[in-house]
Amino acid sequence: MQYPNSIKKSFNKEKISHANRGMKLESLINLSNDYYREINKAIIYKKPTPIKIVNTNFSNKGLRITDAFFETPSTLDYNGIYKGKYIDFDAKETKETTRFPLQNLHEHQLTHMKRILEHGGITFLIISMNNEYYYLDGKDIIEYINNNPDKKSITFKYIEEKGFVINKKINPRIDYLEVIDILYFKE
Amino acid sequence: MQYPNSIKKSFNKEKISHANRGMKLESLINLSNDYYREINKAIIYKKPTPIKIVNTNFSNKGLRITDAFFETPSTLDYNGIYKGKYIDFDAKETKETTRFPLQNLHEHQLTHMKRILEHGGITFLIISMNNEYYYLDGKDIIEYINNNPDKKSITFKYIEEKGFVINKKINPRIDYLEVIDILYFKE
Repeated sequence: MQYPNSIKKSFNKEKISHANRGMKLESLINLSNDYYREINKAIIYKKPTPIKIVNTNFSNKGLRITDAFFETPSTLDYNGIYKGKYIDFDAKETKETTRFPLQNLHEHQLTHMKRILEHGGITFLIISMNNEYYYLDGKDIIEYINNNPDKKSITFKYIEEKGFVINKKINPRIDYLEVIDILYFKE
Repeated sequence: MQYPNSIKKSFNKEKISHANRGMKLESLINLSNDYYREINKAIIYKKPTPIKIVNTNFSNKGLRITDAFFETPSTLDYNGIYKGKYIDFDAKETKETTRFPLQNLHEHQLTHMKRILEHGGITFLIISMNNEYYYLDGKDIIEYINNNPDKKSITFKYIEEKGFVINKKINPRIDYLEVIDILYFKE
């Protein structure tokens, strides 16, 4: 079982010398979402990590969970509202340089993305790859998978062609809403 | 491990003599959301309960959480998309008969509701009270609080006047989207 990112984070207490460098994608997105909320641009949160509680105990510290484990999420990690639209996305990292392995995207998550599109929402992945953060829209992901049903990964070429490099800034750290503006709110 | 809802359902193949009696509001909402997804009417989920992890341990069962506690949620428990609209709500129960104590609604949750409204989303509470489930729209909650800044509860009279009794059915167990149709999608 993998560490959830929330635990990973506490291990490497954020020592940012070069802006964002070494910072986990999840932290960058969380800080970006904090900023978007501060300036009242969008209301987007990370969902808590799903956990199955096995045992609890009352102690002098109150109710504590004494045994639990991480569950596989069936939806994406982040959702909320921007310009009246429902937004639903996930963050993925890969060290591969020529392809994004689809095993990073659970079957349930893909189904979820399809449903969100059907219902008029905006869904996408932010992919950390080759030292950039790429926005890849759900429509393009579904199209690729439909056209390449046997492939186990999305080529980096396709991500470069269809995706968008997300701008890194001081605030928000990674401005993924800029891409949504281009794709969904352009005059 | 909990039974997934799809299995639970097959156990009690609709042996609801007195519809839903004794069932927790949360379960009724979860079953309703499962049904809405099944018939592809809306994609709405309960968010996982936010938990602060203090300690973990690797055992022969894999990574386990050995110490953790529950955190106060700053948002509402349920969100998703219906007819292209962002939906965000919470479930509350009270044994009071004449008033809904506002201590049930955290300050952060109220702020969250205001923000969702500002951004064009639909937000509300489902209140279990006096043997009924009431839909009370976020706009009416905010209005009440603005007009009665010193009150520590919303009167039941107001809930009856502004809210809607949600219909109980076999499927969905409680049809809260009917109310949204009336309020937001009426011709």
